[in-house]
Amino acid sequence: MKNLEKTLAGIEGSYEWSKIKAKERLDNLAKPLGSLGQLEEIAIKLSGITGKISNPMVNRQLIIMSADNGIVEEGVSSCPQSITAIQTINFIKGVTGVGVLAKHAGAKLKVVDVGINGDIDYPGLYKRKIRKSTWNMAKGPAMTRQEGLKAIETGINMVEEAVKEGVQVLGTGEMGIGNTSTSSAIIMAFTGYDADKIVGKGAGLTEEAFKNKKRVITQALIINKPDKDDPLDVLSKVGGFDIGGMAGCFIGAAYHRIPILIDGLISAAAALLAYKLNPLVADYMFTSHCSAEPGYKTVVDILGLKPMLNLDMRLGEGSGCAIAFNILEAANEVITNMATFEEATIQNDYLIDIR
Amino acid sequence: MKNLEKTLAGIEGSYEWSKIKAKERLDNLAKPLGSLGQLEEIAIKLSGITGKISNPMVNRQLIIMSADNGIVEEGVSSCPQSITAIQTINFIKGVTGVGVLAKHAGAKLKVVDVGINGDIDYPGLYKRKIRKSTWNMAKGPAMTRQEGLKAIETGINMVEEAVKEGVQVLGTGEMGIGNTSTSSAIIMAFTGYDADKIVGKGAGLTEEAFKNKKRVITQALIINKPDKDDPLDVLSKVGGFDIGGMAGCFIGAAYHRIPILIDGLISAAAALLAYKLNPLVADYMFTSHCSAEPGYKTVVDILGLKPMLNLDMRLGEGSGCAIAFNILEAANEVITNMATFEEATIQNDYLIDIR
Repeated sequence: MKNLEKTLAGIEGSYEWSKIKAKERLDNLAKPLGSLGQLEEIAIKLSGITGKISNPMVNRQLIIMSADNGIVEEGVSSCPQSITAIQTINFIKGVTGVGVLAKHAGAKLKVVDVGINGDIDYPGLYKRKIRKSTWNMAKGPAMTRQEGLKAIETGINMVEEAVKEGVQVLGTGEMGIGNTSTSSAIIMAFTGYDADKIVGKGAGLTEEAFKNKKRVITQALIINKPDKDDPLDVLSKVGGFDIGGMAGCFIGAAYHRIPILIDGLISAAAALLAYKLNPLVADYMFTSHCSAEPGYKTVVDILGLKPMLNLDMRLGEGSGCAIAFNILEAANEVITNMATFEEATIQNDYLIDIR
Repeated sequence: MKNLEKTLAGIEGSYEWSKIKAKERLDNLAKPLGSLGQLEEIAIKLSGITGKISNPMVNRQLIIMSADNGIVEEGVSSCPQSITAIQTINFIKGVTGVGVLAKHAGAKLKVVDVGINGDIDYPGLYKRKIRKSTWNMAKGPAMTRQEGLKAIETGINMVEEAVKEGVQVLGTGEMGIGNTSTSSAIIMAFTGYDADKIVGKGAGLTEEAFKNKKRVITQALIINKPDKDDPLDVLSKVGGFDIGGMAGCFIGAAYHRIPILIDGLISAAAALLAYKLNPLVADYMFTSHCSAEPGYKTVVDILGLKPMLNLDMRLGEGSGCAIAFNILEAANEVITNMATFEEATIQNDYLIDIR
C-alpha cells in the first residue's frame, strides 16, 4: 500500500537513451523516414517508458472508477443518478459499450466502486467506496481533503495490484452521473478558462439545461475558490471520487513505468490532475479517441498528447481505450517485426531484368 | 471471369430496410443515443451492405496491386523504380509495414503484379501483369484503353476469387514508384482542381523536385486531355495499372456486397475512378486513416466518407486498412453483443438503497 507523497516522489521521466535507440531502429526500417507517423511516435514513447525496444501488450487491464456526484441535485444531467449503479453492474456483466469492446480487445475489466450512492454488492466488483456520493459542490466542497487523498490512493493501489498480475498496458474508464460537470470544473480551475470555453452538453441536455449546467459549475468555482497550485484542493472542492481514483491510476502507472490510456473528458480531467501533482506522468500517457467535449482538447494540448482515433465517440466508460489498445499493439508490431533496409534486400534470383 | 460492363450493371445500392433495422437496434442499446459515434455509423453501413445486423469479419483479405509508372522518367519520385519490385517481394515475405500490420490483423495478404517493370517470380505472387510499366504520361497516354479495361477486370477477378474463399471484408493496398503522381492526375482530371490544390510531396521530395512534379502532372493533363465524363479515358491517359486494379477491387466488392477499405491517396484515387464508373460503389466503401496528401481529403469528401484513424500515416501499401479492420470489427461487436435497455435492467437484489 503506497501513499501519494511517496509515489509522486518515486516517479521518474522517460528513458531518453531508450527513445533514441527506438528511433534509430525505426529510421532503419524499410520505409520512408517517419512514414508510419504516430505509430512510430507511439513505439518511441513506449520504449522510453519501459527501456525496451519491443513491448508486447498481451496483459491489458481497463480500470473503471464508479462514483456519484452531489452536483446532480442541481439538474446538470439528463440521466437519473441510479444509472451509475445500474451501469456499474452492467460493466461487470460485460454487456455495456466498454464491456463488449474490452472483451473484443482481450482486456480484463476491473470495476471499482469508489463512491456509488447506494449499497452495491456484485461478484467481481471492487468495493473501495470512499463515501456514498460526494456533496453538492455548488454549495460547498465536494469532499474533504482526506477523502480526496484516499480516492487517489485507491487508484494507485489498483495499479499496484495490476502490476503484481503482470499488466503491460492500462486503460481508464468511469461511470458517474454528473461527472462531466466535475471534470469541467477541474479543468476550469486549473486553466482559468470560463464555462463557455470548457463546458460541453454532456449526454443530451436541452439548451436550457446546458445554460444551467454552465451556471452551476461557475457557481461551484466561485463558492469554493479552489487553489490551482494545490491539486488536492482542486479535487476535494470541485472534483469527484471517480476522478480522484483515475488520477491515482495515472500516478501509479507512471510510478511503475506502465503505459496508460486516457479515454474521454473525465479521464482527461483526471490526467490533468495527475499532471499537476507531477508533470512527469505525461511521459506515460496516451490518448485514445478525440472526444467531442470542448474541455478535452484543452487538456490533451496541455499534456502534449494526440488522439489516435477519429470516431466521434462520446460514451465514456473507457470505450475509446478498448479500441486504442490494438493501435498501441500495432505500433509495437511495427518496431518489433518490420525488416530493416539491410534485411529487406532481395536476392537477385527473384529479380530478373530490373532496371 | 466477369467483364466490366456486366459487373457495373449488376451493382445495387445499400439495403435501406436493413440500415433502418440496424439503427433501431443501436438506438435500443444501453447507451445515450448515438454516443458511439462513427462505430454506430459503421455498423449501420455494414448492415446496409449485407442485409444482416451482425457481420463477423474473421475472413479478411488485403489485396495489393503493384505496378510501375512511365512518369518516373520525369524525376517525380525520390525513389528508384527498382523499389517497386523489391517491396513487392517483401510484401509477400511479410516484413514490410503492411505485411507486419496485416499479420497482426489476421488478414490474408494477396500481392498482385499488374505491371512491375521486370520479370518477377516469387512463390505466392499473383502474376497478372498487363505490361511492364505504363508509358510516360507526360508525353502521351499511359496505356491503351484496352489495357485500362484489363487492369480493372483484374481487380474484379481478384475479388471474385476472394468471395469464393469466403472473404467477409477487403482492404486495398499498392506499390508503384510514381503513383502519387498518377493518382493526383486522376483526381485533377475528375475534379478540375489544379496541381497546387491536389499534389502533395509524396515520399520526401525537395522543394525543387516538388515544383517539377506539379509541372509534369499538369503537362500530362494538357497533353492527354482526358475526358472527365469517360472514366476509362482518364485511367488510360493519366492513370496506372495499380490504380486500375484497385478500382476493379472496389467495383467487384460492391458487386458482391463486401465491405472494402480505402487506404491512402492512391487507393482513394482508385475509389474515385470506381465511383465515376458507378456511384453506388460508395455504399460499400470505408476509409481508414486520414492521409496527409491534399488530394486525399478532396476524394473522401466527394465519396462522403470519414477517416477513422488520426495517425499521420503516409506509408501507403494498405497499412491503414490493416489497422482499420479492427475498428470495423469493433463496430460489429457493439451492435451484436451490447445489451439493450431492456436486457440491461438490473435485478433489485443487487441494488439496495438506491435513490
